[in-house]
Amino acid sequence: MRIATALLALAAPTTMLAQRASAPVRDWRATHEIAIVREMNALLALPNITRDTAGLRRNATAIAALMQRRGIATRLLEVSGGPPVVYGELKATKATRTIVLYAHYDGQPVNASEWQGGAPFTPAFRVQRDGKWVDTPLPDSGRLDPEGRIFARGSGDDKAPIIAILAALDAIKATGGSPSVNLKFFFEGEEESESVHLEQTLRTHAALLASDGWIFCDSPIHASRQLQVVLGVRGSMGLELTVYGPSRALHSGHYGNWAPNPGILVAELVTSLRDADGRILVKGFQDDVTPPTPKEIAAARALPRPDSALRQELLLGGTEANDALLAERLLLPGLNVRGIRVGNVEGAAANAIATDAKASIDFRLVPRQTPERIRQLVEAHLTANGWYVTHAAATDQERLTHRKVVRLVWGGGDEATRVSADSPLATALLGAMDEMLGKPILRVPTMGGSLPTAVFEHTLGVPLIVFPIANHDDNQHAKDENIRLQNLWDGIDAFAAMFTRLDRFWPRTTP
Amino acid sequence: MRIATALLALAAPTTMLAQRASAPVRDWRATHEIAIVREMNALLALPNITRDTAGLRRNATAIAALMQRRGIATRLLEVSGGPPVVYGELKATKATRTIVLYAHYDGQPVNASEWQGGAPFTPAFRVQRDGKWVDTPLPDSGRLDPEGRIFARGSGDDKAPIIAILAALDAIKATGGSPSVNLKFFFEGEEESESVHLEQTLRTHAALLASDGWIFCDSPIHASRQLQVVLGVRGSMGLELTVYGPSRALHSGHYGNWAPNPGILVAELVTSLRDADGRILVKGFQDDVTPPTPKEIAAARALPRPDSALRQELLLGGTEANDALLAERLLLPGLNVRGIRVGNVEGAAANAIATDAKASIDFRLVPRQTPERIRQLVEAHLTANGWYVTHAAATDQERLTHRKVVRLVWGGGDEATRVSADSPLATALLGAMDEMLGKPILRVPTMGGSLPTAVFEHTLGVPLIVFPIANHDDNQHAKDENIRLQNLWDGIDAFAAMFTRLDRFWPRTTP
Repeated sequence: MRIATALLALAAPTTMLAQRASAPVRDWRATHEIAIVREMNALLALPNITRDTAGLRRNATAIAALMQRRGIATRLLEVSGGPPVVYGELKATKATRTIVLYAHYDGQPVNASEWQGGAPFTPAFRVQRDGKWVDTPLPDSGRLDPEGRIFARGSGDDKAPIIAILAALDAIKATGGSPSVNLKFFFEGEEESESVHLEQTLRTHAALLASDGWIFCDSPIHASRQLQVVLGVRGSMGLELTVYGPSRALHSGHYGNWAPNPGILVAELVTSLRDADGRILVKGFQDDVTPPTPKEIAAARALPRPDSALRQELLLGGTEANDALLAERLLLPGLNVRGIRVGNVEGAAANAIATDAKASIDFRLVPRQTPERIRQLVEAHLTANGWYVTHAAATDQERLTHRKVVRLVWGGGDEATRVSADSPLATALLGAMDEMLGKPILRVPTMGGSLPTAVFEHTLGVPLIVFPIANHDDNQHAKDENIRLQNLWDGIDAFAAMFTRLDRFWPRTTP
Repeated sequence: MRIATALLALAAPTTMLAQRASAPVRDWRATHEIAIVREMNALLALPNITRDTAGLRRNATAIAALMQRRGIATRLLEVSGGPPVVYGELKATKATRTIVLYAHYDGQPVNASEWQGGAPFTPAFRVQRDGKWVDTPLPDSGRLDPEGRIFARGSGDDKAPIIAILAALDAIKATGGSPSVNLKFFFEGEEESESVHLEQTLRTHAALLASDGWIFCDSPIHASRQLQVVLGVRGSMGLELTVYGPSRALHSGHYGNWAPNPGILVAELVTSLRDADGRILVKGFQDDVTPPTPKEIAAARALPRPDSALRQELLLGGTEANDALLAERLLLPGLNVRGIRVGNVEGAAANAIATDAKASIDFRLVPRQTPERIRQLVEAHLTANGWYVTHAAATDQERLTHRKVVRLVWGGGDEATRVSADSPLATALLGAMDEMLGKPILRVPTMGGSLPTAVFEHTLGVPLIVFPIANHDDNQHAKDENIRLQNLWDGIDAFAAMFTRLDRFWPRTTP
């Protein structure tokens, strides 16, 4: 069973949703679908692998050109050693409020050979037939199957919102409307590389970026395919570790069960950090965890529950924590194994003891946890478990004098953020979206993923809310990343409503 | 510290060893070193990756030609679907005993990019300078540095013995001697692929292969660099396993600590099988283990102890089982992790939950254990630990109805063998070698590695003894495999002594 079918009962029918949105905007979009997709595909054809400086600059220049064509005052905010931020301003007549729209144009690394078609930067329009995604030529005119998808790295994460924002402006203009709030645009190029220059950029351009709040257009929407407003994000931190075996590979018969086996050692290390139910076993880890409030738990439980359909779709015979609700699990911190690499398997396996083992881990944090504290706790935990911890490649002397040696290389890390549903920005956004939908939009206390929201909160002192448009099954960060067309269309409708109606719901007094 | 230096005190000086060998043989070899190496290099230049049918046949043909040039009656024993055995006979005048010499010409798979020079089938002569192996041209004449080595896949494992046997015959002939036992030659081409056709070949050619015993010329000698007679081998069995996660890769933030993580699951599975001290935790596993006899333990303890020097060389701060002796550990069964593969690490790591995890394991068995019984015990252990075990790719239905699903693909497996030091073949071989050395040769109760010796014992009912010549640090099964020249020279001396003196020490009555 595919999610599209499985969740139909949960999802608001897309036709109804469209009817409640501004009909002129919807009509304009319906006659411009192919042109919108072509503009998006041209952007997706530009390789955007994070840290690829030259490739990212080509993306920034292309996006700036798209913005200038819409009359947005555009410039690149440069920073030494990182890709530029594409910045723009569009002032609204008589507006008293200003929001900044955030998206990022860089994408995760790809292994092209794993992708259907083998070309992550050749955008492909595909329609599902008999459970397979079939390449389909874009017609020259007419409508597109809204269940069709565009496959390319960066499609769902995170170029689609950039295209939807610009198309919404086109639609407003073409239908004789105008934005009711001042708009600023901030399209970043190193979100997938832990936004290492973001804080510096924000500090340098704090005056330029003055606003009443940020709308983060990143990440997927709810698995039920309904639009949502997300009031928080989990923090994150990455860890790469190496444990050491013999200095040269050894025959497993002649030296096995004498020489330490790094495959066993890394398995023991990983299982000492967490169990199969997701319980984090690092001593002291729970001390810094703010338990979810009863209100947050209630909000999580009030959300549609895709759990059962997702389990069917993902072929899961069970989930962690005795089948606890996905939405509740995301209120907690997490520890995920991204990868383990030791020796070789299957056809490439040799009867050898490998020289080392590597594991890649990411942590997801909740408010009050800090990356620095996680580092301290994990290192103390490993030391207490008999590991000698180093941050550089282990020296011969270190290996000779310690039984278990591990090298830890930590990523930068982001703290979590959560804002109240009663804050002015949340009140305005929820009001505008509720009105557009004709019913309450989903209110998610926190998303499971991470965004560099804490940097904004700390540096600029303004609230941030996440407003995603991508489908939950967009395969972001993995092979065959995609954007579902109906999600793009719904995004255009929502941005058009946001830009034109937000001011009407903004509280008149500062609470 | 390199092993060559570290073990000098333990090793019998090579000059003394050479003096006690037949001086004429040694003198002949000294004037033919370069020619011998050139002949070996020509053989090593033929790619011999196991299962590469065409490449293996080129090896077999080349070896047959080398044998025919020595007057050995040679033929290829063909088998459908496998590489041929290169078989030969050399009858001795008035001989009453016949031995068969075994070696194999296939090698383990290679990852060329990991090798120094990047070309595992371009044999390189290298001499160590300042801890590095430096490429050195072969001179046109003169002697070679005996600490120099030839680097190529198949050098130590297991083409060097073939060259040493043939050079020993050349030396005997050139110095006016002749073998005192009938010699048969059996050079196999699928030892690294679990010798799947060996039993069939032995059964088909049982009459042709009639003998008083087999000498297995495979594996490395003792780490002290002294020649040894090895009376047993451990059995072996391989296992490839796959554990399943979600049917598509998931964002670790949005689905982490809800969707099962195959990296955690495989780590838990592996640590449930054995601990970091090498204790095998599979229930019932120890029931089939014959404990080593006091005589075997005494023999293991009487061997030179390279442990401390090896630990220095291998940069090991400790070894498994509280630093127990290597020789004693090899009397026990073992479980080795050959590899683990989940997701990606370091630069390729993505914040994703992988769809599956793979692990590769090999078991080392002692007498009385059978591969079939190990299979039963491991599968019962996994089932008792909540795993649903399948042998084919798991179906959607299996994944949906079981929380933990593992696919097991077992290798064929070999049983262990051990013969008594008092058997006629052992008495003869030990006598000839003791006389050549002028002192008792090392008597090893069992080697740690595996050879298909059980198939011979079961099919032909004759004793087998392992007589290796390769250096222990030959990197067999790994990158930069090599053969140390002094080991090749000592092998030639030993084979010459064996062929000419074996008959004199053979017991006159069958015990």
